[in-house]
Amino acid sequence: MLRFKNALVMDMCEDTHTEYKEVWTEGGRIAFCGKPDSEMLKNAVFEKEYDLENCLIMPSFKNAHTHSAMTFLRSYADDLPLQEWLFDRVFPMEEKLTGEDIYWFTKLAILEYLSSGITASFDMYFEPEDYFRANVESGFRTVMCGSVSGSAADAARLEEFYLRFNGRDPLVSYRLGFHAEYTAEYGLMEEIAALAKKYKAPVSVHNSETAKEVRECVEKYGKTPTALFDSLGIYDYGGAGFHCVHFSDEDMDIFRRRNVYAVTCPGSNSKLASGIAPLCRMRENGVKIAVGTDGAASNNCLDMFREMFLMTALQKLSLGDAAAFPAQEALKAACCGSALAMGLDDCDRIAKGKQADLLVLDLSKPNMQPLNAIDKNIVYSGSKQNVRMTVCAGKVLYENGVYHINADEKEIYAHCAERCAVLKD
Amino acid sequence: MLRFKNALVMDMCEDTHTEYKEVWTEGGRIAFCGKPDSEMLKNAVFEKEYDLENCLIMPSFKNAHTHSAMTFLRSYADDLPLQEWLFDRVFPMEEKLTGEDIYWFTKLAILEYLSSGITASFDMYFEPEDYFRANVESGFRTVMCGSVSGSAADAARLEEFYLRFNGRDPLVSYRLGFHAEYTAEYGLMEEIAALAKKYKAPVSVHNSETAKEVRECVEKYGKTPTALFDSLGIYDYGGAGFHCVHFSDEDMDIFRRRNVYAVTCPGSNSKLASGIAPLCRMRENGVKIAVGTDGAASNNCLDMFREMFLMTALQKLSLGDAAAFPAQEALKAACCGSALAMGLDDCDRIAKGKQADLLVLDLSKPNMQPLNAIDKNIVYSGSKQNVRMTVCAGKVLYENGVYHINADEKEIYAHCAERCAVLKD
Repeated sequence: MLRFKNALVMDMCEDTHTEYKEVWTEGGRIAFCGKPDSEMLKNAVFEKEYDLENCLIMPSFKNAHTHSAMTFLRSYADDLPLQEWLFDRVFPMEEKLTGEDIYWFTKLAILEYLSSGITASFDMYFEPEDYFRANVESGFRTVMCGSVSGSAADAARLEEFYLRFNGRDPLVSYRLGFHAEYTAEYGLMEEIAALAKKYKAPVSVHNSETAKEVRECVEKYGKTPTALFDSLGIYDYGGAGFHCVHFSDEDMDIFRRRNVYAVTCPGSNSKLASGIAPLCRMRENGVKIAVGTDGAASNNCLDMFREMFLMTALQKLSLGDAAAFPAQEALKAACCGSALAMGLDDCDRIAKGKQADLLVLDLSKPNMQPLNAIDKNIVYSGSKQNVRMTVCAGKVLYENGVYHINADEKEIYAHCAERCAVLKD
Repeated sequence: MLRFKNALVMDMCEDTHTEYKEVWTEGGRIAFCGKPDSEMLKNAVFEKEYDLENCLIMPSFKNAHTHSAMTFLRSYADDLPLQEWLFDRVFPMEEKLTGEDIYWFTKLAILEYLSSGITASFDMYFEPEDYFRANVESGFRTVMCGSVSGSAADAARLEEFYLRFNGRDPLVSYRLGFHAEYTAEYGLMEEIAALAKKYKAPVSVHNSETAKEVRECVEKYGKTPTALFDSLGIYDYGGAGFHCVHFSDEDMDIFRRRNVYAVTCPGSNSKLASGIAPLCRMRENGVKIAVGTDGAASNNCLDMFREMFLMTALQKLSLGDAAAFPAQEALKAACCGSALAMGLDDCDRIAKGKQADLLVLDLSKPNMQPLNAIDKNIVYSGSKQNVRMTVCAGKVLYENGVYHINADEKEIYAHCAERCAVLKD
């Protein structure tokens, strides 16, 4: 049993209030969260005790949309028009990637996730075996998302992966998904709807990221991507839409009725000039909200503090209302909403029996002082600098800048640098 | 002499390229920047050598608009409409402040500046003696900005401070300034123009932060704040406008002709829903750009990495153009533009004879890998986590999370917490 003591705890079971109490974990799960009496303490056997004075324990962040291995493209092609960025720079580089590349670049992303208090990613990319290996070796939790595109025949691969990766490791699950409407033939989308029905499973997909995407879909099918997916039955068992920037009231109504999460990616949407997702209007319409960083090619960092600040700041800006989308909403999306969007129902808060996916923030840094309101401090002032400890499935993977992920980070940097040089050649 | 070696150096003398070389400092200034030959090394006597493998040395950030002591209001009144925030929450708290409060809350801000690689602030607030003491004791550079408001009679205090604080300490200077058009009677602005003329001195002032401010100024004077100031002669010797969100082409033309810096505060302007300053249009119109955090009451953090990201991201968003306002422009504004806006002509870059105001970034963190483009890495992925060392006037004030500012940060936190409790009572 691990004992995390002398800290404030924001368990997020109801709201974002904090209380001095302890968190004990056993076998990767929360064994106790509260104020132990002397009897309990006498009977408990602790493998290790962490004294966390001046710290806050909270549920870790979950990254509900990313392409982890795209770290290799960080700062490779910024400040370019979207089409040039994608077609002239990103796609040609991606074509050269090997499975081994995916393995190393994913490990680089995992280092960055941990330094930002993130313990799980909802990842969509290629080479699933190498991706799987990078995560499991690191002790990092991931939900792999189907990324197929093309014709009806490509659905078979999706089903094969779905069966291959679910149940293979406690840290990994696999969800039905495809890249996007604009890279899928109608027949493929029909097949995916059939898989959703067959497995009574949610489907996750890029949705309404750009105005162009929505406009062209309407021109082609007479429907927005959301309405199209719904008409096919793709969302019959819920799922997630990645980005959801250009969203109509009808789209929101479908998301609410079908229990589909809107996964917002404000860093990426800003940097690529895609627009501002209407999060306030989504909330008013009963849409559930999660948040992701997107890949490092478009963001360029994998930093949940940035995303939370942008979630609220961009709502305030776009609505001209300083009261819009309070900090707590961003915090709940990053910790709880994202977990639920990924199907990680046991990772959303700190309570007995839940997964021990925790984040310890150091409050004794100037950006966290004074403690007028800790939840607002985290969203408006928080940074990676405050991440004292990141705990995934009861294992401390990151502590005071040191990684415990069965790998040396210098070796990861060296491998990535070497491969980048070759890929760029 | 101090020797900083084995690092990449971005001297920013021309652009943002990097090169392996050394930086030597003596008596607070850069003594050498280059690749020393064996003769030079034989003759040099180093007091201390810093081995900075995997690091980047660059000019430090300068914070060209802030109210340092407002740290006490961090997270005290967020997510409220602007008027309620200011009149019901901020002003009543400010009224209770003592000089001793300003001293401690300023020290808290200095800790945060240093952790973000900032070595100088352009500060506008009350109780200049206590503010002065907090900075000088810490070894932190500051340019105090006049903050008078009210009637013509108040100009005398401004002149008194101008004479009292200039030349008193090498780390401190004082610039003519006043709060804003909307808190100054016409007579006060006339007096300030007279002081500008008398001392051939630039004037710095809040300018066009909100649409309401501009609208009401036009209603009252038939001119925008910028045109009004210009018509009075306030900008005859240059200066700075803080915020400049709602800016006409005529305003830009005046700024260009009068050599007035536009100091953008994108974090604050987002959080308070004030709008997006038209930085791209300013650049096209030849306006010089600097950047500031504003105070912690409105931002809420004092983090130049956030400001740089927002500078470029918000231009991209507002113009719908992913190529707008490249990362390098934000970096130059934070390092050089802000220094020049504050009159710190010797603090803008790394070259022999310049002030040794330096920032050392640790590139061996995952958010800085791979090194496809270091300037873009800093702006798009950089965070306080990368700040290895902050050097002001040749003194290392912050290194690997440890402060050397003649004070214990725990004591600063305790004083601030104690006073916050009283002020909120």
